[in-house]
Amino acid sequence: MKESHTLGVGLISVGWMGRLHSRAYLAAGQHYPELPVRASLAVAADPDEGGRGHAREALGYRRTVADYRELLADPEVDVVSICSPNFLHREIALAAVAAGKPFWIEKPMGRSAEESREISVAATAAGLVTSVGFNYRHAPAVAEMRRLVREGALGRITNVRVSLLADYSADPRSALTWRFLKDRAGSGVVGDLLSHGLDLAQFVVGRIDSVSALTETFIPSRPLPAAGAVNRFSSDTDATRTGAVENEDYVSVLARFDGGAVGVFESSRVAIGPRSEYVLEVYGTKGSARWDFQRLNELQFADDPAGYRTIMASPGFGDFSRFQPGAGTSMGFDDLKTVEAALFLRSVAEGRQLAPSVADGWAAAEAADAALRSAASGTWTAVPTVEGETTYDRP
Amino acid sequence: MKESHTLGVGLISVGWMGRLHSRAYLAAGQHYPELPVRASLAVAADPDEGGRGHAREALGYRRTVADYRELLADPEVDVVSICSPNFLHREIALAAVAAGKPFWIEKPMGRSAEESREISVAATAAGLVTSVGFNYRHAPAVAEMRRLVREGALGRITNVRVSLLADYSADPRSALTWRFLKDRAGSGVVGDLLSHGLDLAQFVVGRIDSVSALTETFIPSRPLPAAGAVNRFSSDTDATRTGAVENEDYVSVLARFDGGAVGVFESSRVAIGPRSEYVLEVYGTKGSARWDFQRLNELQFADDPAGYRTIMASPGFGDFSRFQPGAGTSMGFDDLKTVEAALFLRSVAEGRQLAPSVADGWAAAEAADAALRSAASGTWTAVPTVEGETTYDRP
Amino acid sequence: MKESHTLGVGLISVGWMGRLHSRAYLAAGQHYPELPVRASLAVAADPDEGGRGHAREALGYRRTVADYRELLADPEVDVVSICSPNFLHREIALAAVAAGKPFWIEKPMGRSAEESREISVAATAAGLVTSVGFNYRHAPAVAEMRRLVREGALGRITNVRVSLLADYSADPRSALTWRFLKDRAGSGVVGDLLSHGLDLAQFVVGRIDSVSALTETFIPSRPLPAAGAVNRFSSDTDATRTGAVENEDYVSVLARFDGGAVGVFESSRVAIGPRSEYVLEVYGTKGSARWDFQRLNELQFADDPAGYRTIMASPGFGDFSRFQPGAGTSMGFDDLKTVEAALFLRSVAEGRQLAPSVADGWAAAEAADAALRSAASGTWTAVPTVEGETTYDRP
Amino acid sequence: MKESHTLGVGLISVGWMGRLHSRAYLAAGQHYPELPVRASLAVAADPDEGGRGHAREALGYRRTVADYRELLADPEVDVVSICSPNFLHREIALAAVAAGKPFWIEKPMGRSAEESREISVAATAAGLVTSVGFNYRHAPAVAEMRRLVREGALGRITNVRVSLLADYSADPRSALTWRFLKDRAGSGVVGDLLSHGLDLAQFVVGRIDSVSALTETFIPSRPLPAAGAVNRFSSDTDATRTGAVENEDYVSVLARFDGGAVGVFESSRVAIGPRSEYVLEVYGTKGSARWDFQRLNELQFADDPAGYRTIMASPGFGDFSRFQPGAGTSMGFDDLKTVEAALFLRSVAEGRQLAPSVADGWAAAEAADAALRSAASGTWTAVPTVEGETTYDRP
Repeated sequence: MKESHTLGVGLISVGWMGRLHSRAYLAAGQHYPELPVRASLAVAADPDEGGRGHAREALGYRRTVADYRELLADPEVDVVSICSPNFLHREIALAAVAAGKPFWIEKPMGRSAEESREISVAATAAGLVTSVGFNYRHAPAVAEMRRLVREGALGRITNVRVSLLADYSADPRSALTWRFLKDRAGSGVVGDLLSHGLDLAQFVVGRIDSVSALTETFIPSRPLPAAGAVNRFSSDTDATRTGAVENEDYVSVLARFDGGAVGVFESSRVAIGPRSEYVLEVYGTKGSARWDFQRLNELQFADDPAGYRTIMASPGFGDFSRFQPGAGTSMGFDDLKTVEAALFLRSVAEGRQLAPSVADGWAAAEAADAALRSAASGTWTAVPTVEGETTYDRP
Repeated sequence: MKESHTLGVGLISVGWMGRLHSRAYLAAGQHYPELPVRASLAVAADPDEGGRGHAREALGYRRTVADYRELLADPEVDVVSICSPNFLHREIALAAVAAGKPFWIEKPMGRSAEESREISVAATAAGLVTSVGFNYRHAPAVAEMRRLVREGALGRITNVRVSLLADYSADPRSALTWRFLKDRAGSGVVGDLLSHGLDLAQFVVGRIDSVSALTETFIPSRPLPAAGAVNRFSSDTDATRTGAVENEDYVSVLARFDGGAVGVFESSRVAIGPRSEYVLEVYGTKGSARWDFQRLNELQFADDPAGYRTIMASPGFGDFSRFQPGAGTSMGFDDLKTVEAALFLRSVAEGRQLAPSVADGWAAAEAADAALRSAASGTWTAVPTVEGETTYDRP
Repeated sequence: MKESHTLGVGLISVGWMGRLHSRAYLAAGQHYPELPVRASLAVAADPDEGGRGHAREALGYRRTVADYRELLADPEVDVVSICSPNFLHREIALAAVAAGKPFWIEKPMGRSAEESREISVAATAAGLVTSVGFNYRHAPAVAEMRRLVREGALGRITNVRVSLLADYSADPRSALTWRFLKDRAGSGVVGDLLSHGLDLAQFVVGRIDSVSALTETFIPSRPLPAAGAVNRFSSDTDATRTGAVENEDYVSVLARFDGGAVGVFESSRVAIGPRSEYVLEVYGTKGSARWDFQRLNELQFADDPAGYRTIMASPGFGDFSRFQPGAGTSMGFDDLKTVEAALFLRSVAEGRQLAPSVADGWAAAEAADAALRSAASGTWTAVPTVEGETTYDRP
Repeated sequence: MKESHTLGVGLISVGWMGRLHSRAYLAAGQHYPELPVRASLAVAADPDEGGRGHAREALGYRRTVADYRELLADPEVDVVSICSPNFLHREIALAAVAAGKPFWIEKPMGRSAEESREISVAATAAGLVTSVGFNYRHAPAVAEMRRLVREGALGRITNVRVSLLADYSADPRSALTWRFLKDRAGSGVVGDLLSHGLDLAQFVVGRIDSVSALTETFIPSRPLPAAGAVNRFSSDTDATRTGAVENEDYVSVLARFDGGAVGVFESSRVAIGPRSEYVLEVYGTKGSARWDFQRLNELQFADDPAGYRTIMASPGFGDFSRFQPGAGTSMGFDDLKTVEAALFLRSVAEGRQLAPSVADGWAAAEAADAALRSAASGTWTAVPTVEGETTYDRP
């Protein structure tokens, strides 16, 4: 492979997502050997020495820096992965745009629709290709569901059900970390989980036009972290002091889509029972389909009243054949990130937007913000349209 | 058994539900031998000779009449089962009240909250015990779910999910029967299915305070019945003429309960894939529980994050031990009607309301009508409170 | 209905099964109104006054007696239900034959193949129609599976899997009741559960030709019942004394069928986890089908590699439409007994064997005994053929 | 990272498994950063230029050769992955032993117990650490099941059920490839699938002592490959000529384990409906556990009669926390290979056998051969014990 075909990767923030991006860049070349570029792990930035050490020792980055600005200025860095906490997304993304470097950013893109808009408008104006971490799109069963919808196997789409129930904040004794604070996280479960659901629904069915929503904070206060400070690694709590949870634990939404379909969305971060039960269901005049993230490799599909067929992901589904030779052998979550990396690398190499775009990220953020405004006002609320290139009509 | 302990049953309208009531009255004595009364099938009323013949030959009624008024006047009739089409419920129920006869009425009680109110107020004023056909309450798994909720096993209840998806009207080529006409059926899926879900949620969690809803008629017109007339037995259609569907195929609802819980309801009569998928899920701060009518004898329950336990209905669940000796042996739908009959007979014998009451029926109707009004207005809508004795606090 | 069309029922032994038979006789007329006969509950026999009282008060028998011989001699008794403990089956059945009365006997028909043979040969010689309580045959999903097999939808049948896992004896602290004693029960789980599985497989696939089996008694001793005596109602135990379990807790079997198919059977009465998990799976060259008693109303069916379709029992399945109007509404276990009663009554009325016959009962017993002999000898063991009319080829 | 800590990998045969090994070696360093060694992809051997090109371009090997002997002689190769067709395993493994190079070999290790014995004895005599591709062991849910068994949560183990049903050869029109020929593949589904099940059961429960088995070839002939030759890439067939399938499509086995447990095994490569349904169930006196490869990340567990809990793999399960941060996020099949690679690398680095050993591979082969002999003779057959270090007692 010629050096000119290699893209140097700069990773900003070394955590779980940073590791996933790093693995995915390397794996992309193995699963998509025809890709016109290969990724090389060049520079990782993290304010924390532990993170930098992990990047060198475990992930294999050639160089590490404390300040992401140094990374962006490094000529060895051709593409950037933004895996920092949410509250830094806007600042870093705009800096990446200023540096002229295509970026792959985790979701939620911004803490608000406004931050997301700024990122999207800037990247679009600069002509950069981008990628947003809407990983669930890449599950072969979701790809197959979308193909069935687009090819009319479900008839005219009538309604959608999306529920994203998790338990990661279900323990009321867990610390009041940054996730629960507005200035750090923005919204709560709306940005963290619902945004995935909104994107999935828009990706499969089309743009959401208006919403009626309600939100609740079922656990209104939590113990402060032990040191009294919010730290991403801390899980110890101060038994004597509590603080207010500033964003929502739960949201439910009625929605109307552009094409006439309607839908229900629901999400909780404090459900006990489901672990990561992220379910997408699409109903039409000829059939319906269902998918659950916890059973990543299964699709439920019915196109007549006899009932659902449980179809294991198989070589015809999305990019499944890139990973496994036959149905019944499971792809894992990390593989979805490999699909994402491959789409991003191909987008950069070919100069056209194939991966989920910043416009998609902005659109999900507008739907999320509309839900929050609706919940506050108690009224049906229109979702503003976004500019730029969404990928809902991507083949 | 002494004659004085026997209650003569009068059945109005001989269809599927009429047969179920008849079987249930007889089975009640077998499964609840300690009941202070036994039922005897006295008189069946049906305008159709076919129905009357079936009542005599198959169901074993001693006498049949064409006009229900004659039945109500018969001194051998002590209790009345109202199984007629919805549009006659009000008229018949009020006549039963006038005749001073306790009645067991199928749901939806009236075509509207107003009709339901009239029935409830009249029966209450007359001091009659009643029963409303909210059969799903009687599933042992639902009874167990309610017990868990009431005993605090789920902690404080935070949210509810109810979905009632059926396919009975999914075929667009099926005839425009009475179900689709406002003056005959009242609402569509709201009265037919959602009312069950509203009652279940109120029975388990408590009164619904306000709602935001949307409704849709996905199949706006259907072929007229062959004869051009609406007939309950006709399934032939006239290929050349169609008529407008006048009520909704689909409804989704956000709800707030009195006690602070919130919820999502959804119902469709045109879903393809689910047959009769009626699901109730209750979430609390300590756990959650799920039930699906299609798996009548199973309860999903989690009271810690390890995940759901699939619990087969067993002797400790509701009235299960009246029917089966051990877990894993299934009760069927008809058995739920036997529980209902036994509750009604005991209510009559003891002169106190144990079965689902007309006030419960009215309350479900108010929530249903509020959903319809909300869907029409696009606003959050309060659910009026009802008078009379609801049974939500029944032990 | 003319009196001459009524058959007087005599019930021998009033327990759970006795109640089921009684209900089923009455319900048969409601669900099968075209039956040329109706059943009337005439006489119940039970040595225990509690049982006799229940028969009169709860079940509605006109007369009760202590001695079953008195029942058999009663001219009002036209047909007999034999629901006594296993060890009395032979004696009572032979007496019923001597009295010339058609009988419906619970399974296992005898404690051994020899007892079953005697019953079958006697009834056949007397020209009596009979019924054996192989109730699982009557589940609509099983009927549909058999129809699919017979019509070739699965291709040539290659192999069968049957597992019957229950927990009714899983608690080692439960008393050493008659079930665990050879002279009372005969075999253990082989007669109690495996016999059902053997019949189901023979009913759906055909005669079993030879077997290789192993048996185990995982809980070799149990506490004696409190009074030191074996009593069917006792559950108290004597904490200080234990006795030996004389029959098997577990059996597994390899089998070869007449037509070339092979199979695996497994059964346990001490499994913890399954409650009454009785599973029948049939595989062929074109597809496969699966059924689990715990999900009585579901059939899993695949006729191409895309995967199993979960099909809810629906009006086309067996006698489903006699009970419920649409898919998704559950039949229960008791309904299977109603199908059985209707088959028996029709057999008696028409003088031809439609219900599972004593030859079927004998054939299941021969396969069961062959498994026990194989387990004892450690060799493949041929299953003797039986005489008389099996119903495996019934349409 | 110092050069001395890097092990050069030599891959023999570049197919699906070769790619998996390659990915896994690299990923091991990311998921197990504390490993004292890192792997480097040095040399790949494949007689086919297509395979060699893929190794260089997609997998990143520095050098490729046609002859595996050249690879074994290369001083840059420290460890060897043997991913060739079965019939070359023995020859290559013995050559690797002769070259003194630790190897990771795919299963079945040999075409027969005798070949497996030769490999195991040679490697053991040479003091080499090894790894055998029993990947299912590494599923976190299986690791958790084994932990539960070893810690007594299931009580004394009484019985095991293993079924491995696949459809990869279900189409009778598919070509007669090497899989169906004795001299190439050895046995059929016994070596290909059952050997996995035998290893899993021995890993979790202990050594199998004796077996009674039957085998069947349901599809006795298949079309010859188009060119008349067996080629691993060919799927075209010659419509006019067929050849005999020389090994079994189906096997079922009764087994007795050393510790007193018993079990049933069943495997098919021609089942229609299951795709890769590999199920392990373990029952004991206190509970039971179930796992299905198709739902890799789920464990069913019951330790009281209330029923099975569906537990998603979570950080406490095996090496799950090396891969995912929380329950509900799926590991995939390729991740199991990463666990395997890490075990192998650690074994090599520390000079002690942690990965599944050649003795384990031999033991599985002895059980498999005993099943084949039993099926041929129709008798219970003892499983010979093996020498060398099995890892069943590994912590």
